[in-house]
Amino acid sequence: MKRPLILVTNDDGVTAPGIQSLVKMCQTIGEVIIVAPDSPQSGMGHAISISGPIRLRRSAAFSDLEAYECSGTPVDCVKLAKSVVLKGRTPDFCVSGINHGSNASINIIYSGTMSAAMEASLEGIPSIGFSLLDFSYSANFMQYQTHVLNLVNYGLEHGLKEGNLLNVNIPNIPAEEIKGIKICRQAEARWEEDYVEAEDPRGQKYYWLTGRFLDQDHDQDTDLWALENGYISVVPSMHDLTNYPAKEALIDMEKLM
Amino acid sequence: MKRPLILVTNDDGVTAPGIQSLVKMCQTIGEVIIVAPDSPQSGMGHAISISGPIRLRRSAAFSDLEAYECSGTPVDCVKLAKSVVLKGRTPDFCVSGINHGSNASINIIYSGTMSAAMEASLEGIPSIGFSLLDFSYSANFMQYQTHVLNLVNYGLEHGLKEGNLLNVNIPNIPAEEIKGIKICRQAEARWEEDYVEAEDPRGQKYYWLTGRFLDQDHDQDTDLWALENGYISVVPSMHDLTNYPAKEALIDMEKLM
Repeated sequence: MKRPLILVTNDDGVTAPGIQSLVKMCQTIGEVIIVAPDSPQSGMGHAISISGPIRLRRSAAFSDLEAYECSGTPVDCVKLAKSVVLKGRTPDFCVSGINHGSNASINIIYSGTMSAAMEASLEGIPSIGFSLLDFSYSANFMQYQTHVLNLVNYGLEHGLKEGNLLNVNIPNIPAEEIKGIKICRQAEARWEEDYVEAEDPRGQKYYWLTGRFLDQDHDQDTDLWALENGYISVVPSMHDLTNYPAKEALIDMEKLM
Repeated sequence: MKRPLILVTNDDGVTAPGIQSLVKMCQTIGEVIIVAPDSPQSGMGHAISISGPIRLRRSAAFSDLEAYECSGTPVDCVKLAKSVVLKGRTPDFCVSGINHGSNASINIIYSGTMSAAMEASLEGIPSIGFSLLDFSYSANFMQYQTHVLNLVNYGLEHGLKEGNLLNVNIPNIPAEEIKGIKICRQAEARWEEDYVEAEDPRGQKYYWLTGRFLDQDHDQDTDLWALENGYISVVPSMHDLTNYPAKEALIDMEKLM
């Protein structure tokens, strides 16, 4: 059987340890092509570069591999991969990450990692965003290789169903202590922001975002519950934001004129 | 009855005609506070500024009103409005826009206008993003005042149901020709990108995103159908991206270890 073509991207940038590890893992099962941001792009959500030019260069971050770095956002990377680098050839799979830090729950909407994966899924490419709940630069990503490849291989073999997109988070515990995989829903949570207010060297005021993550969901079918209890969380995700129950409940609005 | 406090924001920037019109409309029904980007932020999706400082200044773009402009993204504007400008006081309603151009269908995920509205809805603030299918700077937004205020007043009176978020698009036809309001689902569509490749004045190659919008949905319950047929489209939207049907279909993944 022909080895699958796997597109690898991320939001922490082409030199981040997380993508280095993910590429190593994927090389064992397929042909790998890398298009990733040339600088960190965390928190970029589904941003795209429309008002300015984007640079795309061969990257030396991965010896012997076809790798590119791009000045744009994670979503730009996927678009460029498909239409410029691969000239319309469609990858068999896309993986994004491994992100340094959680993309569970509401973090999915702020996450460049997950937005890149979603962009690939929009193009019909089965796609998984991986995140490890460890911000440390020296985190040991490689220990989770079996778990990561099990999920990718499953997706390659069976597809990922309509939606074509998984949000996978790995708890910050040694691989041998992981209890298993849980298919979850996205937990209800939000960030309570708390801006640091300070003055720059020229005496001008600035604000810098910080915040506290508030888990507002105490059910046991969520990604947050799975992660807190030693499981890898897998949330099948999608780009249709329609709130179908509200659609019925608001039908009276049609009488407004 | 006390006049409601309405937070107004957008992604086209504080001086865009669309937000100027939206503010004028909202002043007729409530107390208005404005926090909007100091420059255009189209296509920013749900990006937030986490790796650098944000500036927030009083804006002269709206005489006599409490208005601020911010160097960050549309989502930053909403976060700053709530925690810095209003110091935790919660607006009764948030409106974002009026966007110059469509945010129907898949455009919602790229849209700064809709991401700002979604951020407000996450905070429990009923929120509507408005867009007009007209990119022209001189578009006549004010003609749609009755339609816009009907929707805002409905939301103020009845709430917007769980989700607290509407994606409203107005077709580019004279107000008197609008046939009515349709509560819709988000149409399936995608952008087929087509990068312009060129050289800058220093001989370095760059890419610039352009593309074609591909409607892949031919049902009559979608926002694209409504707009093409002379209706204002209203899509109740939400931040839970869980693909519930796929969640059942992928349960076998739990057996992977």
